[in-house]
Amino acid sequence: VNELELIGMIRALCPPGKGTGLVAGIGDDCAVIRPRQGDDLLLTTDFLIEGVHFLREEASAADCGWKALARGLSDIAAMGGEPCHALVSIALAPWTTQAWVRDFYKGLNLLAARHKVTVAGGDVTKSQKLTCDIVVMGSVGRGKALRRDGARSGDAVYVTGTLGASVLGLETKKGKAWKRHLRPEPRLEQARLLHRLGATSCMDLSDGLAMDLHRLCLESSLAADIDWRLPLYPGASLRQAVTGGEDYELVFTAPRSKRIPDSLAGVQVTRIGEMRKGKPGELMLAGNPLIPIGWDPLRTK
Amino acid sequence: VNELELIGMIRALCPPGKGTGLVAGIGDDCAVIRPRQGDDLLLTTDFLIEGVHFLREEASAADCGWKALARGLSDIAAMGGEPCHALVSIALAPWTTQAWVRDFYKGLNLLAARHKVTVAGGDVTKSQKLTCDIVVMGSVGRGKALRRDGARSGDAVYVTGTLGASVLGLETKKGKAWKRHLRPEPRLEQARLLHRLGATSCMDLSDGLAMDLHRLCLESSLAADIDWRLPLYPGASLRQAVTGGEDYELVFTAPRSKRIPDSLAGVQVTRIGEMRKGKPGELMLAGNPLIPIGWDPLRTK
Repeated sequence: VNELELIGMIRALCPPGKGTGLVAGIGDDCAVIRPRQGDDLLLTTDFLIEGVHFLREEASAADCGWKALARGLSDIAAMGGEPCHALVSIALAPWTTQAWVRDFYKGLNLLAARHKVTVAGGDVTKSQKLTCDIVVMGSVGRGKALRRDGARSGDAVYVTGTLGASVLGLETKKGKAWKRHLRPEPRLEQARLLHRLGATSCMDLSDGLAMDLHRLCLESSLAADIDWRLPLYPGASLRQAVTGGEDYELVFTAPRSKRIPDSLAGVQVTRIGEMRKGKPGELMLAGNPLIPIGWDPLRTK
Repeated sequence: VNELELIGMIRALCPPGKGTGLVAGIGDDCAVIRPRQGDDLLLTTDFLIEGVHFLREEASAADCGWKALARGLSDIAAMGGEPCHALVSIALAPWTTQAWVRDFYKGLNLLAARHKVTVAGGDVTKSQKLTCDIVVMGSVGRGKALRRDGARSGDAVYVTGTLGASVLGLETKKGKAWKRHLRPEPRLEQARLLHRLGATSCMDLSDGLAMDLHRLCLESSLAADIDWRLPLYPGASLRQAVTGGEDYELVFTAPRSKRIPDSLAGVQVTRIGEMRKGKPGELMLAGNPLIPIGWDPLRTK
């Protein structure tokens, strides 16, 4: 199969959505998109690479497609936004079959359909290891993006869902935890409610609570105290909950005066600590220093 | 160097541009961009992969940075648009040094500054081979994007510049042709003039004239007749001009009644043929069938 035929197959698998503002999709030099007037745009890009983010012996093609898009959607959720279009760059490895590519797009489109996202373009080439880079464009009300740098001293810190499922799944390769590792659920509906509830900052947990909350603290020039009573995923340890990557839950802050419900769109919300003045980025877990260690692809083991 | 330090270095190398509509750049989950009201948005993504698009023995880090962005900018040019923001996803190979990354961004920013493009985000990870995926967002007047599917029967076909320089450079590794291979110049200024001149379709020449014009013909459901008197780059053969990829010149069509000048923003423009009814995608060169062969990364040699 040559490049032209492959693009033709992908185009057939990804029909343009109606009413999404897509003027020209797959098949031209760029996607042409007519944005909704008055909104701010969100743009994010994330790799999914064989041997780094997945092993082909373990994850199906559909799992890979789902997760590639989930990573991008979770970034849109982290800003409180609404995703609309995705571009998919894919570099095929020597082992990649046409069936694999078809199933990859089927998995990706399954998640795309749930969140009304249209695949609007991309790039195809080859590589030694299968490499996908997903681009997601979304929108958010003007000036309403939930940033990492908006937390204030005294704000309460919350997380959605439970922590540690993804790394528990990765380490045990079984049960619902493994399913959650393979097909994470981006918290888009939950995130969209946060602005109205008075959240001051938000990010998604892709590299683990310790690493990601450290980053949020750095951007907000604050420190944070975390309770030991974290919402653990059933069977997950405190270590897995604190340093395990890829949960794709949200961590967010809000003034203590704001009433944050116990659940948002069917997902539990737990208050886990408080922002305070201090050395920017410093984290304390139940009174002990918490070192920001998590998933870092560049770390030498 | 860990992920956080690397992102810090990249952030220092890529300061946000003034007046570009960038609300939040590197350091958050998404780039937040306030678009100019009324325009259509253009979005494109392109890989640059070690061993596929460049060899590290041959191309400097700065060359790679330049070319990664040039590929994206050329896609924006192909639609007649104006680039504004770029996202850079980069997966570092085991051999990659901090100095290499710094020089990569310096080369990229050199071209970015010329075209007033701001790096607004991206992703960093690792891979076996150095892999970059560039995302460029641009804008174009509402409904004014130059598409591939707008050519009409009887339109004249034009190209900017000369053809064959890039593959000549790749094959000889010397002189200005090699420099053009390493640091192509996206035809943004030229492309922005095309809409007013009455161009009906346009694309950039990344995979060679035969392959790319074939694609334009397919999208426009037309055939094309090409003259043998093509504007060859000095020293390039007809084969190199017709099947050589990466010239990043523009091929465009316009009704014969429109006066197209001999040069646009200092770059020559040559009429090379005519669109006609026929088998969609069929090309004839001086009366002989021209097989659409060019750079195809998926082709088995």
